[in-house]
Amino acid sequence: MTQDDIARTINRYLELASVAEGADIAVLYADNATVEDPVGSTPHVGTAAIAAFYDSVRSPNRTIDLITLRVSGETAAFHFRVVTVVDGRTITVEPIDVMTFDDRGRITSMRAIWTTEDIVVS
Amino acid sequence: MTQDDIARTINRYLELASVAEGADIAVLYADNATVEDPVGSTPHVGTAAIAAFYDSVRSPNRTIDLITLRVSGETAAFHFRVVTVVDGRTITVEPIDVMTFDDRGRITSMRAIWTTEDIVVS
Repeated sequence: MTQDDIARTINRYLELASVAEGADIAVLYADNATVEDPVGSTPHVGTAAIAAFYDSVRSPNRTIDLITLRVSGETAAFHFRVVTVVDGRTITVEPIDVMTFDDRGRITSMRAIWTTEDIVVS
Repeated sequence: MTQDDIARTINRYLELASVAEGADIAVLYADNATVEDPVGSTPHVGTAAIAAFYDSVRSPNRTIDLITLRVSGETAAFHFRVVTVVDGRTITVEPIDVMTFDDRGRITSMRAIWTTEDIVVS
């Protein structure tokens, strides 16, 4: 697993995160992976819980764009923009996520660093 | 310790990181804190090792600016720019660092996510 592999997985993750069903996102994760989104909340552990989490936050009118990606060793951090249109309002949040990877390139943990104070509604 | 406390500590850290002696930076860290810079390298553990690390990377002509800061729970991630002028060349790198904090607001771990591929020389 190279840094390019990690970068490819994160780009795939961001593509899927805007449109896919939870199960299709969860396959990017290792079996006992953890998702803590936002950091400080109770982590979702394992494929089924992770799939359910992504299903719970899906929205039909959402675009996601990468702003900055850094990869070092088996860890990546990326700053990205999530824009969701709901009832004519545009909701924007730009978290920094931190992911770790196993030697097969699967995500072993995701921690999303943002709070409701970072949300901009226009 | 609030999110504002963490933000203040990170701003202080970035101020010090461009000019201060290692010992003055190390006081921001908890006693048994770890510094892994870049991620994948051997961590520096404890105040003396952390102070020595910062002394080892000091440079007289360096400016550091915060680009983006996110804080969630007791974790912060921040994207920042380090510009160092050496022998008439300008060396720029923009890592994403991840820090955790104890309940007294001291840094318990720092992980710097960047590689030499992220360095721009002009």
